Order: sequence, then structure tokens, then C-alpha cells
Amino acid sequence: MDCNNFLNDEDILKDQDRIQPFINAITRNKHLFKDKVILDLNAGLGLIPILLIRSGAKHVYAMKSHDHANKILESNQINNVTLHKKAIKEVELDCKVDIIISAWMGNMLFYRGNIQELIQARDKYLNQDGLVLPDKGQLYLQSIEDGEYRDQKLTFWDSVYGVNMKWMKQWIKHEPLLESIRKDQLNSDPVLIYEVDLMKCTFEDLSFSNSYQVQINRQDFVTGVIIWMKYSFTFTHLPINVIMGPTKSPFWKPVIFYFNDEIPASKGEKLKGSFAIKFVQDDLILIKLSAHTKQYHQIQSFRLN
Amino acid sequence: MDCNNFLNDEDILKDQDRIQPFINAITRNKHLFKDKVILDLNAGLGLIPILLIRSGAKHVYAMKSHDHANKILESNQINNVTLHKKAIKEVELDCKVDIIISAWMGNMLFYRGNIQELIQARDKYLNQDGLVLPDKGQLYLQSIEDGEYRDQKLTFWDSVYGVNMKWMKQWIKHEPLLESIRKDQLNSDPVLIYEVDLMKCTFEDLSFSNSYQVQINRQDFVTGVIIWMKYSFTFTHLPINVIMGPTKSPFWKPVIFYFNDEIPASKGEKLKGSFAIKFVQDDLILIKLSAHTKQYHQIQSFRLN
Repeated sequence: MDCNNFLNDEDILKDQDRIQPFINAITRNKHLFKDKVILDLNAGLGLIPILLIRSGAKHVYAMKSHDHANKILESNQINNVTLHKKAIKEVELDCKVDIIISAWMGNMLFYRGNIQELIQARDKYLNQDGLVLPDKGQLYLQSIEDGEYRDQKLTFWDSVYGVNMKWMKQWIKHEPLLESIRKDQLNSDPVLIYEVDLMKCTFEDLSFSNSYQVQINRQDFVTGVIIWMKYSFTFTHLPINVIMGPTKSPFWKPVIFYFNDEIPASKGEKLKGSFAIKFVQDDLILIKLSAHTKQYHQIQSFRLN
Repeated sequence: MDCNNFLNDEDILKDQDRIQPFINAITRNKHLFKDKVILDLNAGLGLIPILLIRSGAKHVYAMKSHDHANKILESNQINNVTLHKKAIKEVELDCKVDIIISAWMGNMLFYRGNIQELIQARDKYLNQDGLVLPDKGQLYLQSIEDGEYRDQKLTFWDSVYGVNMKWMKQWIKHEPLLESIRKDQLNSDPVLIYEVDLMKCTFEDLSFSNSYQVQINRQDFVTGVIIWMKYSFTFTHLPINVIMGPTKSPFWKPVIFYFNDEIPASKGEKLKGSFAIKFVQDDLILIKLSAHTKQYHQIQSFRLN
């Protein structure tokens, strides 16, 4: 028994934030699944395939399945599931499917997720009128005042057990942080900066450059911005929206981008700029962020890998 | 900048439990390091090499060094350190060394540590009168009553979002847990079950079968045993002993082994048995545990990988 995989299975299943939206999409929307052939890109112990069959699916192709998934299917009297331990790209299916279900999202939608895999599987196997679940993703930007924490992180390198590691300070400024923040550290409302439709997006659509504008809601400094995400099942009877917000710390954490210098801003002042992502692959994303007020200007590059 | 490596560097440096013993060994024992040639198997950002040079070392060969270590050495005016980004086994040194320093330990001493690497480097590069730091490791066994938590973990699989996953229960019984427990869950004193001397141990010494005996200190059930470790610098002016005990949850967690069935025991009753490890490699360890009271007998196999 692989002790750590095993613990992961249990932890993933217990993580309601991650799993409950999928459960709801399946068990409360039987009309979507009745007599359908479905591809589950990450089946694990078989929970999702079993629930899909119980909701009326004709057949489920279950990728990345766990060693024990067959026994679990058996003890639940499920036999119309084809298990594959490998990922979809290493397998050749001999038919098209009506639905693809996948937890394709990562931090900030794309980072360390499986969106490339989903796009490839969709283009190869999904029927023309087929569905992807979940099917929409959105990114939101909000400005933050996080100076104390940022200073702590920078000051740490001044003397590490007596050794001067100040050299590291320049890097922290180019390094996004995967971290939640406190509500009182937000100093603007969120704005939508990006939307993706998994039903039709191409690999190229994952790279973009969009402008934004937020209004600072108090006399404050802006130390950077936080990017958080929302993803949705829009084909369900009631839309299921999952918000992985700035102050919540679930599996997919938001991402903080610090400016080189804090920007002083008055209450009501506008902060404008652009946010650009170059998606290289699931675990390498390049980011360019600009921010301007009347008097201050910042342009900066970051790298998530 | 690799965001996640970077965070790891900071986290490792901030983890006093892990790093302070090494700092103390170096900065309070300059007599050990004066004019010595030293091999650091895991140099990271260069903290240990810099402290070694400051403590009088003639030269340090620093393996697995971070991209920015050279800049940090420079800004500390250190020039007698040779940085290698690779591990020692991928590098050929052209001299022997007087001291090898390495955080070779993992959970339960061996699991996910670097003890194989240390033994190989020692046999190849250490001078005859050279030192290994830290140089000793010990394992301790204590009996535990942890029934409620164990039951919770087992019951979970009865119905996972309505799906029967009872099949998984049999595996949890063969699966050691990397976890701390509460003090009140211990029901015996600890006993030493294994000792290793890094100055002379062979690869074969990492596998062993030793008997143990503990006295149950209250009328109770014994649900299993917990194994925790101690490692020591014994060449320092004052010995430095680092105890990664059963109730402390630092980086190297203790390991819990559950019996198939709980063993009822009276206050003062003896629990005897044997604990055997077959060390296959740093990330694969096979364990055999037996436990006996007058009336009850348990023998069980486990696997850490």
C-alpha cells in the first residue's frame, strides 16, 4: 500500500470545497447524464464514475484510476465503467464521448492544473454537441495593502542566522505568492479580468493581455494585487459557481503580485493597468503586470513555475 | 524565479527545529572545523557553508546549491567554497574531506531521508580520521491508545458521498501513518529499539530485527505503537541531541503502526514483540511488527513508500 497516495485519496475526498460542486453537478442533474457516454479525466478511487452511472450514464471511461478502483466498483455493483490507470493522452479510446468531466483548474485557473489535457481530450474525443464540466473559468483582480507582511518577508533576508542574504530580496519582488490574505487587506472591489469557455477555448486563448481599472476605497497604499478565480458549471439546472476568493484558503490558493514600490492612493482614486499572462504550460506561466495612478507607474514581470 | 523552491528555501531556513541544531554544532564548536576541508551534501542557499568558513574551515564543497548561492557567498566575502548544483553522486571531487555534514535523516530516521547518499559519500571521500555530522541516530517505540481516531479513519470509508468504499479499510491497517499524537494517547514509556552510527554503518545495517518490551502504564487498550527518532552530534563540545518525539509535529513526523485488533492490557502488564525494518531505499521501507501479551498475539506487515 502506498501510504502517501492513500492519504492523498482520503484528503481529496474529505476536501468538500473541491469535491462537493462536482457531487452536486452530478447527483442533482440526472437529465444531463442519462444514457450518456462520459470521459472522467481523473477518476482516482472511482467516486465520480460511480455517481455518474447512478445518475443514469450509459458508460464511463475513467482515467488515472487508483489501484483499488476496480474493487470499489465491484462492491458497488457497477460494471459499465472502463478503468484506465494512465492519463488520457497515453490511452486510445475507440469512440467519442458525450461529456468530459475534469477538475481541470489550478491556481489562478491555469497554474498546476490540467487545462492542456482537457483541451486535447475535448478536441479529440468530444461529440459535436457534447459538454465539458465544469465549462467556465474567470479571473478577478483586487488591489491590496499588505505592507507589513511583505516587509517581514523582505526583512527576513537581511540576516539569516547572521548571514547576509539580501541578494534574495530582489527575487521576492518578481515572485508571485500563492497565499490568501485577510479581508481588511483588500482596498478595492474586485474586477473581472479574464474569462475562458472550456467548450471552445484554444491553447492560444490561455494567453492574454487585458486592461483593468479599480477604485481604491480608502486613503491607503497599494502594495500589489491579488488574483483569484471562479469556475462554473453552467449547463446544470441551477448554475454552480465555485469561488476561490482572496480570503479563503482552500486547495487552489489565490496569487499575490507585489509591486516593486508601494503606490500611495487616495480614497476614490483610480488604479489602472494591464494584466497579461503568457501560458507556456500547466506549470510555467509568465505574467506582466502594470499599474498606474495619476502620479505613479509600475510595470513588472513575474514567473510562476 | 522558481516561486516554490523559493518558498521552500524560506520555510526551511525558518524551521528552527531543523536548522538550529546544525547552527549550534557549527558556531559553538569552532575547534572541530578549524583548517578542515568539509563536504556539505545539501547546501541550498549557502548558509551552512558560510557558517563553516566563518568557523575556520579551510574549504567547503557545497552540493545541491541554489542558483543564487554564488551571489550570497559573494556578498558575504566568502571565496573558499566550491558550489555544485548537482548531488554528490553526480560530481567527482578531486580530494578527500575531513568532515561531511548532512541532514541525512528522514521520518523514522530513514524514510525519505538521504542516508544512502551519506554512506556512499562517506565511503568514497571521508578521510580515515574524518567526522560525519550528525553522527548518531536512534529509534524509540512507545505503545498508544488511539482507538477513536483510528475508528474515524476506518468509518470514513463506509460511505463516501454515498458510495461504499469499505474495500479501502483493509489497506489502512497495513499503512503506517506519518503523524504526531497527543501525550494522553501514550500508554507506556518509550524504549530504544535501534541505534545507528553514521561513522561506520553499512547499507546492510539499515535493515534490522530487534525485540522490545514495554510496560503498559494503565488499564487500557493498545491500538498500536508509535516510532519516533532522536539524532545526535556527539563530537561537539556538548553533545547535541535532537528529539523528534511522539507528540511534537515538526518536519520529520513520527510513524504510527496500528494493530489489526486492539490489545486489551492491564496496568503493569508487559507488551513484548519485535520490530523489523527492511530498508530497500530511502523511499521504500518494509516493516514487520509483532506484539504479544499473555493472551493476545499480533504479527503484521507494513510498507512505507
